[in-house]
Amino acid sequence: MRDVAIIGASMTEFGTRSEWIRELLVKAAQACLEDADVSPSQIEHCYVSNMSSGEFEGMTGIPNALAHDLNCMPAYTQRVDQTSASGGAGIYAAWQSIASGTSDLTLLVGGEKMTHRTTPETTDIIASITHPVEYKHGVTLPSFAGLTARCYLEKYDAPRESLADVAVKNHANGVYNPHAQFQKEVDKETVLSSPIIADPLRLYDFCPITDGSAALLFCPRELAAEYTDDFVSVAGIAGATDTHVVHQRDDPTTMGGVVESGEKAYAMSGYTPADIDVAELHDMFTILEFLQSEGLGFFEPGTAWSATQDGVTAIDGDLPINTSGGLKSKGHPLGASGVAQAYEIYQQLLGEADTQQVAADVGLACNVGGFGNCVTTTILEADQ
Amino acid sequence: MRDVAIIGASMTEFGTRSEWIRELLVKAAQACLEDADVSPSQIEHCYVSNMSSGEFEGMTGIPNALAHDLNCMPAYTQRVDQTSASGGAGIYAAWQSIASGTSDLTLLVGGEKMTHRTTPETTDIIASITHPVEYKHGVTLPSFAGLTARCYLEKYDAPRESLADVAVKNHANGVYNPHAQFQKEVDKETVLSSPIIADPLRLYDFCPITDGSAALLFCPRELAAEYTDDFVSVAGIAGATDTHVVHQRDDPTTMGGVVESGEKAYAMSGYTPADIDVAELHDMFTILEFLQSEGLGFFEPGTAWSATQDGVTAIDGDLPINTSGGLKSKGHPLGASGVAQAYEIYQQLLGEADTQQVAADVGLACNVGGFGNCVTTTILEADQ
Repeated sequence: MRDVAIIGASMTEFGTRSEWIRELLVKAAQACLEDADVSPSQIEHCYVSNMSSGEFEGMTGIPNALAHDLNCMPAYTQRVDQTSASGGAGIYAAWQSIASGTSDLTLLVGGEKMTHRTTPETTDIIASITHPVEYKHGVTLPSFAGLTARCYLEKYDAPRESLADVAVKNHANGVYNPHAQFQKEVDKETVLSSPIIADPLRLYDFCPITDGSAALLFCPRELAAEYTDDFVSVAGIAGATDTHVVHQRDDPTTMGGVVESGEKAYAMSGYTPADIDVAELHDMFTILEFLQSEGLGFFEPGTAWSATQDGVTAIDGDLPINTSGGLKSKGHPLGASGVAQAYEIYQQLLGEADTQQVAADVGLACNVGGFGNCVTTTILEADQ
Repeated sequence: MRDVAIIGASMTEFGTRSEWIRELLVKAAQACLEDADVSPSQIEHCYVSNMSSGEFEGMTGIPNALAHDLNCMPAYTQRVDQTSASGGAGIYAAWQSIASGTSDLTLLVGGEKMTHRTTPETTDIIASITHPVEYKHGVTLPSFAGLTARCYLEKYDAPRESLADVAVKNHANGVYNPHAQFQKEVDKETVLSSPIIADPLRLYDFCPITDGSAALLFCPRELAAEYTDDFVSVAGIAGATDTHVVHQRDDPTTMGGVVESGEKAYAMSGYTPADIDVAELHDMFTILEFLQSEGLGFFEPGTAWSATQDGVTAIDGDLPINTSGGLKSKGHPLGASGVAQAYEIYQQLLGEADTQQVAADVGLACNVGGFGNCVTTTILEADQ
């Protein structure tokens, strides 16, 4: 198995975009190739992380469209879909293509175009992720989040207001991210007075609907220096699943896929949770940041809320989480999110994170599909 | 890079099925696991080849649903989409997962449920593969096939009736395939008197709309004997793309993706076209069998039609093509087709093809997406 490096990364501005998915993919791809000073003709494999271009825009075959638009034919292309964890799954696919020796240069582009559809249409498309019986009984992803949040708060005797700390922190980080959908601070009072969506979760506990794309360029570690002096390495990566029927899980406050993929990724990398200097977690709902940071071993079960309250996960804390603003503030274009998480870690490890820079040699990204139905965890390290 | 073996294979009956996609995937998966005497808990990676469950059935996240229904959690899952070449792309993904050392046991299940939708609905979904400008001007995949067939016939002075030889041959093979959608012979007169769809192509030059699924189980070659004495090895595999805008190609009678993926797969395997004993080609339209068998080097350009006429590709010919009946007779459930092609080659190489058995140590499967926009070619060999 070959060691794998990431030699280029990019993302578009997230938000409401006028481009369709094809244009979004091309923009991120071109910026990524420019970052690495690589021409399209050098690409051997090209993966596209996208959940639902067919449902959102009536367009499939977008990997081929990208290969055509970039002019990287005859590079092999393929779409990677793992619902909202498509980006992390794309990293896993691209990594395997290099690790196996199949490709010496692999481009991954993640993207989604969503905002042109009405909210009910978008809700229907996203709800198709979940078990149809649960959905038809009204148990949507936001409902699960509300139910789980209540379980967490009661189980650990955590104050309801603690959820708001995640939103406040991630918005504070997003202010400084020029790619973020919301570049504005929110205070705790605003979060706690926003409309209830799924009790106890309020409007500001949820990520927005977003358009955008992001890209990464992979090559064998041993060839990375031929392209650039600024690269990071994939230290560990793993994916795992949990039940598709969420109500069959023993304990909703434990995300089995997060635990499993984290343990495997740590084992592969040789790192432990204590070695992680910065992390991007899948905060589609504020409660998920607590569950993931506990599932990944950053905090003991039931203590993520107090650690957050104490500022441990803030930009100047011991373990900064979602320095990019997270999905909460940066936005969540389904297929792009996992790729954009790795983009943030890449920037941090290369010391290119500007105002959001933290001291980091090892970073972790956790991308979640469904309500933890599938998870991919990636650990990146600065070049030693 | 580890050598990769296929230790189990299965397919459901193709045709009009009453099950939805989740049930179809489970049926093929369970039959495949039974074929290899493997339990679901042993699976490490599980890929699902499927183009459009979201568009056809409003259901996404089907890899998670399969992991749940099979009870193979926490196995990693992911959907592989490369339009009608999703099956071949799934083989490539599963192969990489083993070759890279990431997984020691990978299940691939391909499936599609299509027949419950009206023909115009299905046409719209399938047409989303192609470039939207071409489609909106009426240039659908059948139109491309008609235009290309005319170019071929004129360029090589081939008789219009020669196309019918493909349909007659593949229907003759399908008679003996219990999984085939059409288990009936057709004579040349029937083909040539069927309604014109896209001149010069007639109804019997086209594959049907189909429901069905198929599965393959992969492990490292060095571990195969621990599971079974009956396995085949992946000798070569490669994928390639051609222009997404079909009218930009220099010569419609040459499928660049077929040529490119074939050359790479041959190079990897050490085999040449002369070494191939049996092949499954993507005969979505009869003309495609000519173009692929020439692009893969089985015949000189412009001679596939006469070779077919002379019986070279018949079940008792020198190079039997589509002994399964091909897409033409067996049916074409988009995500399943590439997997079912490999199922046929697997059966042939193991001597389990019953009445359709030919003498074969090396077989090839060519799976085509769009109108040759993306192609995966796989070469399998009997255990030496």
